[in-house]
Amino acid sequence: MSEVSARPARVDPERVARVGEALAHVLSPGQWRQDTETLAAYGRDESDSGVFPPDAVVFPESTAQVSAIFKACVAHGVPFTPCGARSGKSGGSLPLDGGVAVSLERMNRIRSISVEDLTAVLEPGVVTGDLMKAVEAQGLFYPPDPNSWEFCTMGGNVAENAGGPRALKYGVTRDYVIGLEWVLPDGEVVRVGRRTIKGVAGYDLVGLFVGSEGTLGVATEITVQLIPLPRKVLTALVVFPSVLDAARAVSAVLAAGILPRCLELIDDVALRAVDGRGFSFPSGAGSALIVEVDGTSEESLLEELSRVGDICAQQGAAQTLVARDESQREKLWAVRRVISPALRALKPHKISEDIVVPRSRIPEIIERLKAMGAELGLTVATYGHAGDGNLHANILYEGPHQRPLVDEALRRMLVMTVDLGGTITGEHGVGLAKREFLALEQAPALIELQRRLQSFFDPSGLLNPRKIFPALVRSH
Amino acid sequence: MSEVSARPARVDPERVARVGEALAHVLSPGQWRQDTETLAAYGRDESDSGVFPPDAVVFPESTAQVSAIFKACVAHGVPFTPCGARSGKSGGSLPLDGGVAVSLERMNRIRSISVEDLTAVLEPGVVTGDLMKAVEAQGLFYPPDPNSWEFCTMGGNVAENAGGPRALKYGVTRDYVIGLEWVLPDGEVVRVGRRTIKGVAGYDLVGLFVGSEGTLGVATEITVQLIPLPRKVLTALVVFPSVLDAARAVSAVLAAGILPRCLELIDDVALRAVDGRGFSFPSGAGSALIVEVDGTSEESLLEELSRVGDICAQQGAAQTLVARDESQREKLWAVRRVISPALRALKPHKISEDIVVPRSRIPEIIERLKAMGAELGLTVATYGHAGDGNLHANILYEGPHQRPLVDEALRRMLVMTVDLGGTITGEHGVGLAKREFLALEQAPALIELQRRLQSFFDPSGLLNPRKIFPALVRSH
Repeated sequence: MSEVSARPARVDPERVARVGEALAHVLSPGQWRQDTETLAAYGRDESDSGVFPPDAVVFPESTAQVSAIFKACVAHGVPFTPCGARSGKSGGSLPLDGGVAVSLERMNRIRSISVEDLTAVLEPGVVTGDLMKAVEAQGLFYPPDPNSWEFCTMGGNVAENAGGPRALKYGVTRDYVIGLEWVLPDGEVVRVGRRTIKGVAGYDLVGLFVGSEGTLGVATEITVQLIPLPRKVLTALVVFPSVLDAARAVSAVLAAGILPRCLELIDDVALRAVDGRGFSFPSGAGSALIVEVDGTSEESLLEELSRVGDICAQQGAAQTLVARDESQREKLWAVRRVISPALRALKPHKISEDIVVPRSRIPEIIERLKAMGAELGLTVATYGHAGDGNLHANILYEGPHQRPLVDEALRRMLVMTVDLGGTITGEHGVGLAKREFLALEQAPALIELQRRLQSFFDPSGLLNPRKIFPALVRSH
Repeated sequence: MSEVSARPARVDPERVARVGEALAHVLSPGQWRQDTETLAAYGRDESDSGVFPPDAVVFPESTAQVSAIFKACVAHGVPFTPCGARSGKSGGSLPLDGGVAVSLERMNRIRSISVEDLTAVLEPGVVTGDLMKAVEAQGLFYPPDPNSWEFCTMGGNVAENAGGPRALKYGVTRDYVIGLEWVLPDGEVVRVGRRTIKGVAGYDLVGLFVGSEGTLGVATEITVQLIPLPRKVLTALVVFPSVLDAARAVSAVLAAGILPRCLELIDDVALRAVDGRGFSFPSGAGSALIVEVDGTSEESLLEELSRVGDICAQQGAAQTLVARDESQREKLWAVRRVISPALRALKPHKISEDIVVPRSRIPEIIERLKAMGAELGLTVATYGHAGDGNLHANILYEGPHQRPLVDEALRRMLVMTVDLGGTITGEHGVGLAKREFLALEQAPALIELQRRLQSFFDPSGLLNPRKIFPALVRSH
């Protein structure tokens, strides 16, 4: 990882101290931290965007405290940046200009789960996996499953509009959030959305706030809708001689009217990296798909997987392995989960991109990425949620001396993604990592409109500054 | 219907004439109409909100023309209000202050349907039913099915975030719109969203614009995602002795982990009104549910309906009738469709409300509505999408002399809806019809925030004026 830690100390320590003093009567000791270790920990996330330690970290335990913190920061002109589990992949929670990091991690209660209403009400610090388990214990299902579900928090999922493999059938975070208690940048608290599944009263501010990457305010309470837990889930691994065969099979399966809940692609580089790590691929395997279907009867799911197998065979698949029990199913998903660490083992450095193309362009983007890798002398590994066109394209490299080449590869990757009608981020967000690339996809007038909208909500400009939008864009 | 047509002539005819002149070089003859018949037709919709004829109706045929019309209206200070099929139920497209009605009905081409990408691109004037048929012919499915699908247009569905019976399983318009070409109130054209299924680059302006009821701009191109057409659909009618039994069965079915695509309730008044109109209910029938499931195999769907039947029997159901073929299925849905005209036949006047309560409160709201009807001496009939808590509660009355009583009943109905954690509109929008009730549900600060947001997008205040928000709200 090439990390940049050179943050100019922009915030006057006096101002930060004044924020701390203003909050002294609101917070308990231990809720305001300025020790070096804490500052260092809250200056990084799971992106490759660098280290930006805040000047203080504050741990509110109530909505009123969040509101007071925002008000104090605005009053004293100190930047403030909300964070959750710091598992973000685009730098969205990095305090770029220092100031106060506002961690929601202590607000971590599931307030209620209603089996009859199919809803849950929770605080933003609830770990996504804890919510999943709690509702599944009651026969309900919260489908969005970001890869980091074991440690990421729901507040972060809301901020980033997190997705995951099941998005193919079930959609993303935004599709499940129906109501929010929301602290606006000036500290005002509003309740937006509703407690019912349906409702159209007023503007859809829930839709606007979900995915706003911590720049329009922060959720202090989240109401989600749930669905009945599917009674049966079946998983299969389909092995192909080449990644293009596999990519074409993805389109063919969907065009045949089958909507699996997951349809994950593993390309040749990724497959070689994981081969033998708890799972051995047959010889000649050059790519694989993990297909997962769910529904009410095992029989009809087996029939569905059998149709998937037939379609894949027509596209050249060598083999379809159906997991017959939970332990076999777990083994197939272990293959998917080990990809990222296995690729890291291939080369000292790895950068992962999160792109989406229209599904029909998957074979083309994979071919183009391979050609680009060959041209630049870099290894490119592609895997991910091929069913909805969302690919994680990884560039593997030897060391910092190759970084300019890697940056060129990243730029070309995003240019070709947009060129194919795609988007530069499917589920990780723009944050810091991609703000300079947003203009590849969005017109200057649209970027300008969004900047103005940000200023509408945050005239102070102090909430999570310099994220999402490029440094300088002029409208025509 | 009690209609109010007394609109003060607020717009100076000179100004309207100047807009017409400014557009003369942009429009062909016949695209600008000021004859009395046209003005009268564009002054009403399917709501009970009155008649508000515009001063001119314009029929743009391109995005550039829409943009030019908006610019001309702003330049000359003339109010302008977009409309589609004028099938709205909340008065959203009524030109309250006169001025120019901008009908998008001539922009009615389906531009493309992609089987591989599962997307379609279309103009706003496309009739929803035409889109449904066109994609179904290719094995694809556009699920949102507002009752008016045979004549409403997609632009109106976007403006109102239209729902329908299938929303229970498949969601509403907002869940399918992924990209928009959008003309802002000042005439600027932006493209928001994307062509891919997934994507999180920038703020979710698509989410904000869908459901903005023609107050933040208008869609000139709509990109929707589609899903594979379910291969099998089965429909059943379940007959109950009383509406409370039926309401409790709705909760029990969902709590058992079954998610039908439709779960429609018919109460005793509605049932008596439709009985004998092409379908005869068994004696002792006091309520009914229409249950529709879809999936991949008929066998598993029959099994699912059989479980539904068992659960309903436990709640007191007398009988479950499964439609064995398409003509029987059609017969069951005809029962649902005839409710509204059949109720109209019971009394000279009818007002239909569109409320939503958390599903668990359905029995309670139905009891309360009946009690209220008894107290006020009005007939209340309730039916609708009980599966997601969205009920259409109808008040039947004799004539204009009862209107004050009806208005009191409406007010009480909305108060009790909000009191039970519900929302005043599930799918029809606030528009004109409910703007004075929004404050029952939303705090003054939230209404004020939305008003300011409206001004952010439309500083002129000329686009579809005086909709959604109450006449006067002061923030605390």
